[in-house]
Amino acid sequence: MKELVFSVAEYMERVAKTKKSMADKGIDVLIVTDPANMNYLTGFDGWSFYVHQGVIVALDIEQPLWFGRGQDGNAARLTTYLDEQNIYPYTDDYVNSTVKHPYEFVADILRERGLDKKVIATETDAYYYSAKCQQTIERCLPEATFKDGYNIVNWVKIIKSPTEIEFIKKAAVIAEKAMHTAYDMIDIGVRQCDVAAAVYQAQISGTKEYGGEYSAIAPLMPAGIRTSTPHLSWTDDVYKDGDTVILELSGNYRHYHCPLARTMILGNASQKVRDLGATVSEGLTAALEGIRPGMLAEDVERIWAKTIAKSGFVKDSRIGYSMGLNFPPDWGEHTASLRPGDKTVLVPGMTFHMIPGIWLDDCGVDTSEPFVVTENGAEPFCHFRRELLVK
Amino acid sequence: MKELVFSVAEYMERVAKTKKSMADKGIDVLIVTDPANMNYLTGFDGWSFYVHQGVIVALDIEQPLWFGRGQDGNAARLTTYLDEQNIYPYTDDYVNSTVKHPYEFVADILRERGLDKKVIATETDAYYYSAKCQQTIERCLPEATFKDGYNIVNWVKIIKSPTEIEFIKKAAVIAEKAMHTAYDMIDIGVRQCDVAAAVYQAQISGTKEYGGEYSAIAPLMPAGIRTSTPHLSWTDDVYKDGDTVILELSGNYRHYHCPLARTMILGNASQKVRDLGATVSEGLTAALEGIRPGMLAEDVERIWAKTIAKSGFVKDSRIGYSMGLNFPPDWGEHTASLRPGDKTVLVPGMTFHMIPGIWLDDCGVDTSEPFVVTENGAEPFCHFRRELLVK
Repeated sequence: MKELVFSVAEYMERVAKTKKSMADKGIDVLIVTDPANMNYLTGFDGWSFYVHQGVIVALDIEQPLWFGRGQDGNAARLTTYLDEQNIYPYTDDYVNSTVKHPYEFVADILRERGLDKKVIATETDAYYYSAKCQQTIERCLPEATFKDGYNIVNWVKIIKSPTEIEFIKKAAVIAEKAMHTAYDMIDIGVRQCDVAAAVYQAQISGTKEYGGEYSAIAPLMPAGIRTSTPHLSWTDDVYKDGDTVILELSGNYRHYHCPLARTMILGNASQKVRDLGATVSEGLTAALEGIRPGMLAEDVERIWAKTIAKSGFVKDSRIGYSMGLNFPPDWGEHTASLRPGDKTVLVPGMTFHMIPGIWLDDCGVDTSEPFVVTENGAEPFCHFRRELLVK
Repeated sequence: MKELVFSVAEYMERVAKTKKSMADKGIDVLIVTDPANMNYLTGFDGWSFYVHQGVIVALDIEQPLWFGRGQDGNAARLTTYLDEQNIYPYTDDYVNSTVKHPYEFVADILRERGLDKKVIATETDAYYYSAKCQQTIERCLPEATFKDGYNIVNWVKIIKSPTEIEFIKKAAVIAEKAMHTAYDMIDIGVRQCDVAAAVYQAQISGTKEYGGEYSAIAPLMPAGIRTSTPHLSWTDDVYKDGDTVILELSGNYRHYHCPLARTMILGNASQKVRDLGATVSEGLTAALEGIRPGMLAEDVERIWAKTIAKSGFVKDSRIGYSMGLNFPPDWGEHTASLRPGDKTVLVPGMTFHMIPGIWLDDCGVDTSEPFVVTENGAEPFCHFRRELLVK
């Protein structure tokens, strides 16, 4: 009946690490609402993060407690290892209600479990943890002490297990396939939406051996003037002679992402885009090859900045971030960033997406490499020529 | 340069209605972070809702003010009508920072515009408006008065304009195509992920005349035991003889959704599923045909409940909700629900997804109709046979 993706032992090790971090911070109870963190700790899966749901980790209770909408209770029963008494579905009248809030129900659970006077932490800046959630839980549990538990689980999951690395490698094969599909299909006169459709088809059908999962971010593929900003998707216009096309696509296996970005130029693209593309590729390669375990996240950015200094181009944003397991709307993990001031020590098993994109007023270039930190350096997950793709 | 989807006049009418609602509630300033509401008021588009962004509506300022990440500033310039002085991009060091928060930047804007002592409302329970956003803005603006502005824009947008209705009709054509694709392809021995891939392909390529947009919810298509809960997607298993398959798919045109659900049975499906399917279809048809403008939302549910009472099946959740313009993770609008106690008066131009799914311990059935309230009743957007799909 249960459809576990990892062994119960691996899940419980993650829970143990989370409890250790909580104890170190003086936290008794952590309410986890980020869908990726819920999945990481319990296996919970399902597109139900559009209603309030979460898992509660308490130092004194072995398993996490799941709470969510009644109709999603069977998803908890099917996709997690949790015992029945640790699954708390709420009635449907809590959904989009003007008179009651699901966090009143959460408060009831905590009271029932004797946790209402404890030190309770919440993921204060996580997706789907709204201001109203915090206001409601604080109102309902006046004797509790509240702390900020944002990113506690995210920092636990920054170092991946061998199984997790294998998952990202499977995702990488899908990412390469998606990129090949886009490259093969994009041409002058082809509709952008038809290419996006083929990219999705490649992402989800996966390989003969395994299928793909929905990505935390839609295919980002602006063309023309729209490449002056990185987060636009397709339109139903056709590609035109001289267009620059940014392709930031991902492969996804069991919610583990491998994102990959390349930039294409069609026909008579400007010299500026060609120069920008060469600069980005050179800086990316230098930074990637310079990585050694023990370096700081900011050191990686320094290699990039030094390499491109001579070009005259300037990048005023981070060049990468920790990535892996995630649900919409982001495949980034919100922990380490490759940028000045980030003192995170690079450790084998950490996985990053290095994407030093540069966007100017009328065009932009994204070229990226997802990689894992190894004992010796950085191993890229993907193998796709690291240059502007010309057609 | 500007790529506006609606006329500036239509956007400004929406802003005017929002200001009217704010004034009625004694609110001077409304911070809007729901991506659908941002899009509704300004046209802003882009998959950048994974970082903090929003638009600020102030009674005393004609246009809304956009704030967001620096690299998304050009998305605001390209996709909205906003004047340059109303676009506030923040520097990249605010992103995933442990030392600063984007709502410090928002507070700076409000101070600069002389709004820091006003009555400020926020969308307290909206996606992407985190607890930390509220904590930060309250800390930074000690002289302001804070109110709950949740759903103010959502209630403004519940009645659609003729152009919006046309958009949903275009989405409906795509939804039908996606459903036909799934029905044609699903069969014993076919991998679920390959069907999901084809569904995406159909959703995004759209029609010859126009392309599709990414949906706010991934294709929901549980099979077998997984139909005991509504929000699971595909796996890479193959469909088996006797499987029930729930298909909740949508078409999307310019972020306007038309969701549609049907349930398929393969080969030797149980009599229970067949009975359940007949019950759901009968109740759905009765409720749909009974709708008249001026009825209350709860009246629609009453027709359904009365119709299915004789079957012995019970549904303990709402049978539908207002829907339309949206971004991940939900196409529902979080306003009116078709359920007991909802006193919303049905008015022509309101659009709903009536989806009276029933999920039992080992199987479930979803059959739905999206519709618009008209002068005479309810007009379904889709035309797809309203019964269990047998293969």
